[in-house]
Amino acid sequence: MPNTRRDFLRYVGIAGGAGVMYGTMSAMGLAPAAAETPAYTAPNAGDLRGRGRKSVAVLGGGIAGLTAAYELGKAGYKVTVLEARNRPGGRNWTVRGGTSETDLKGISQTAKFTKGEYMNAGPGRIPQHHVTLDYCRELGVAIEPFVNQNADAYLYREGSTALSNTAVRHRAAKADVYGYVSELLAKATDQGSLDGYLTAADKEALMSFLSSFGAIGPKVSGDAAASYKYTGTGRRGYEVEPGAGLEAGTPLPPYPLSDVLASGVGNYFSFEFGWDQAMMMFQPVGGMDRIPYAFEKAIGLDKIKYGAKVLDLRNTPAGVEVAYTNPGGQSKVLEADFAICALPPHIAAKVPGNLSAEAVAALAYAQPADAGKIGIEYSRRWWELDHRIYGGITNTTTGLGNMWYPSSGFHGERGTMIGYYNTGASARTYGAMKPAGRLASALEKGAQIHGPVYGQDVASSFSVDWKNVEHSEGAWVGWPSQTDDSYKRLLEPEGNIYFAGDHLSHAIAWQHGAMVSARASVTALHSRVMAA
Amino acid sequence: MPNTRRDFLRYVGIAGGAGVMYGTMSAMGLAPAAAETPAYTAPNAGDLRGRGRKSVAVLGGGIAGLTAAYELGKAGYKVTVLEARNRPGGRNWTVRGGTSETDLKGISQTAKFTKGEYMNAGPGRIPQHHVTLDYCRELGVAIEPFVNQNADAYLYREGSTALSNTAVRHRAAKADVYGYVSELLAKATDQGSLDGYLTAADKEALMSFLSSFGAIGPKVSGDAAASYKYTGTGRRGYEVEPGAGLEAGTPLPPYPLSDVLASGVGNYFSFEFGWDQAMMMFQPVGGMDRIPYAFEKAIGLDKIKYGAKVLDLRNTPAGVEVAYTNPGGQSKVLEADFAICALPPHIAAKVPGNLSAEAVAALAYAQPADAGKIGIEYSRRWWELDHRIYGGITNTTTGLGNMWYPSSGFHGERGTMIGYYNTGASARTYGAMKPAGRLASALEKGAQIHGPVYGQDVASSFSVDWKNVEHSEGAWVGWPSQTDDSYKRLLEPEGNIYFAGDHLSHAIAWQHGAMVSARASVTALHSRVMAA
Repeated sequence: MPNTRRDFLRYVGIAGGAGVMYGTMSAMGLAPAAAETPAYTAPNAGDLRGRGRKSVAVLGGGIAGLTAAYELGKAGYKVTVLEARNRPGGRNWTVRGGTSETDLKGISQTAKFTKGEYMNAGPGRIPQHHVTLDYCRELGVAIEPFVNQNADAYLYREGSTALSNTAVRHRAAKADVYGYVSELLAKATDQGSLDGYLTAADKEALMSFLSSFGAIGPKVSGDAAASYKYTGTGRRGYEVEPGAGLEAGTPLPPYPLSDVLASGVGNYFSFEFGWDQAMMMFQPVGGMDRIPYAFEKAIGLDKIKYGAKVLDLRNTPAGVEVAYTNPGGQSKVLEADFAICALPPHIAAKVPGNLSAEAVAALAYAQPADAGKIGIEYSRRWWELDHRIYGGITNTTTGLGNMWYPSSGFHGERGTMIGYYNTGASARTYGAMKPAGRLASALEKGAQIHGPVYGQDVASSFSVDWKNVEHSEGAWVGWPSQTDDSYKRLLEPEGNIYFAGDHLSHAIAWQHGAMVSARASVTALHSRVMAA
Repeated sequence: MPNTRRDFLRYVGIAGGAGVMYGTMSAMGLAPAAAETPAYTAPNAGDLRGRGRKSVAVLGGGIAGLTAAYELGKAGYKVTVLEARNRPGGRNWTVRGGTSETDLKGISQTAKFTKGEYMNAGPGRIPQHHVTLDYCRELGVAIEPFVNQNADAYLYREGSTALSNTAVRHRAAKADVYGYVSELLAKATDQGSLDGYLTAADKEALMSFLSSFGAIGPKVSGDAAASYKYTGTGRRGYEVEPGAGLEAGTPLPPYPLSDVLASGVGNYFSFEFGWDQAMMMFQPVGGMDRIPYAFEKAIGLDKIKYGAKVLDLRNTPAGVEVAYTNPGGQSKVLEADFAICALPPHIAAKVPGNLSAEAVAALAYAQPADAGKIGIEYSRRWWELDHRIYGGITNTTTGLGNMWYPSSGFHGERGTMIGYYNTGASARTYGAMKPAGRLASALEKGAQIHGPVYGQDVASSFSVDWKNVEHSEGAWVGWPSQTDDSYKRLLEPEGNIYFAGDHLSHAIAWQHGAMVSARASVTALHSRVMAA
């Protein structure tokens, strides 16, 4: 293991609880490191010695199933993964040239992306603190930055305000909102409105901060309205950029206060400093599916049955029995000591067998969410050439949701945008269209933001409507509650059957959630084996 | 040219001024692209036909000199670059294993960095809107993101406040400052303190923004103090992270309002949305000097004389005469029609010749600035393994200034940090030390922030004190004024001698500034030739 220090900390964490772990870290001088990813101690390879080789059937070769199979396999368990698709990863799905898919409505697409181009139809980004990165390190999956924030990307809000239906650069929106917020708070502070909450020292420090943060002007003696004015700043961008000689630059003028507030452009900002979204973010080089393929290699291809759709799942006195079809359409039965059911819950709920009615009801309690994505390959990187945007996200209310400029291939000949990543009603609207209609609409709405260039040099596209993707039937799930008995029931095994998936975590829709859930099930299963 | 559309826009810009250009862009639907980098039309290869081949001596093979030589060379000028060093780039200097340097105080260092490791001793980052990226594209220099912002890097302020001498994660500082600022402004707005500045609609929109931006609580009827409270948020980080099953996460508690304000942590934030510093930022793959070496190749190695120190520069009736030493120590003379002097101004001021006293005074008017950097190679990427920091900047008042975690080699075996990038008094303090002392101090102060791990696994280091680097004698220059006659004088040629460099731009200390200044001189020189 490359990191014995970290392992030691995890060991301490397991043995003594988080309090002991952080105390130990502090004593080691690592206090600032603060939060660790959830503690986990993998079963040891030698643990099963003298206990016989235990077998585990893993249902579903998505990230949860692969993580479980990998961790169990390292410890000497005999694992068999049953995966209905012909590839690993589940919703971790990278579409490349040649990828073919027929959805549940019978819509078939074959991607024509040029070699080297791809779209991550499912998860696309990894925060620094997710265990997903630890698996990338452990499995040798190369990573590169994912551009989750770009000052030169746009915000585009539909409506009838002065800034509606206009592409506003993030940097301009931010500078103006921060400028006006600083002006207002400086005025209120200076006029004594907040004296009940601030000491004189607080006020002085606050005014110093606001001056820097908002690029606001100074106090104008005897003129409160003219004091601390925000009148624009080069931070927001230039009409004429600073250049050679005497060209000091002409900043673009700020939008008026009322227009900025009415537009709602500021309501996107908190995304950029969210726990799971703040930069830095990462992606595997070459496509997100490098992760499941690395798992496949580490687990062993012989341990994974593709094209294996689960027909029946049942506890038996000896363990579990799983009936499935093989790719030839024949029905097979797999017997094992245990099963880990890592299917989406709403899919698992439909599998016949002898799960209790309560367990089935708990699985069916999950609410699948809609999400859609379209990948649009261009033969010219106009976003770099014409807009000087190198990666990042343009956010819009037009139904496209989020538009991702590619985070790799900078300065290359071509590139693939995520033309929309939308959810809810927008995802349903696009999902109801045929692929050609989705593209046409995406190009039309994208051109509102980017100009006619958006419709030019389009080389190919591929779109995914997750609600209608076979074996997934949704992008992720939500729960009416994650504290009630129904949810809790799935955290315990039913007989010899354990459940795992991002849906059984507080990192739903992240691979991290699938991984930590799988680890929790592995830990529970292994503890039971060791206690037997 | 890969981008005829862009060239067309530039042409329009040249012909009709910026207003015409933006009007044209708007008509083309490109309005949102807004600011273009300074318009520039390169001389055409055919322009000199019938005029004889003009020769230009370029003094200095830094970025300005290389840009000028490249642009002139493309147009058919006979260029000769005289460079005192044995490499191109000037302050664009990448130190690798084997790099040897003796500074003006006689301190010698030879870098022992492992193959593949390097430090950019000079410029290290490129914003999206700089022409530096255009040259990277044109010259085939591969680029990758430079991590200029990382929510998990630290802010460390010395002092006697509650948060002093503590490593505070950027994300925690940001969430707390934004939380309290939002609470205060919401309170002031709700109590009517800003009614003179805000309409009812403004107020409603502002309150909606503050709720999202600050993660603040709701109004508590009849209790102004309890209303809109900021009580912490998961955005700032967790004591126990959200995980599997029932683990919803325990956010770290916020720092108290007065402590946050007194600490000054918020005063760093505006850096992250500055015109030249906001993400995305880039760096060449493998080291910043990929740019000058690409220029060298494009210009032609035969056109560049290394080890050529300028001894004398003078206008002659026929053109210019430049005396220089060759690497063998012999004195040589180069005659040419024109010269572009792209030496640092304070160095150029010391070159004998027949420049007017006014020109020499103008050159000497530049004030060289101090800056220092140390590269510290580690054989273990502890910042990723122990602190979960993948690139970015820790900012500190300890004298280290800015500490850069590497933006490449993620998950590799080793990596090279910039242990300090400091300026002014801090740079002078470190510059006064010997390299071993600089390292010892950097390690001691770095450990205050990162714990003892900072002193472990150190493989090698190399430090640069720019004030004492031969041929540079400073990191960049400042001017008492960039609007007075002294500065303006250098924007005009003196006889057949033109001046160029980032010091003659409003992007001082950026390669962009050197490039646009060089382009301006090339344009002026070429216009003169064409008008003759």
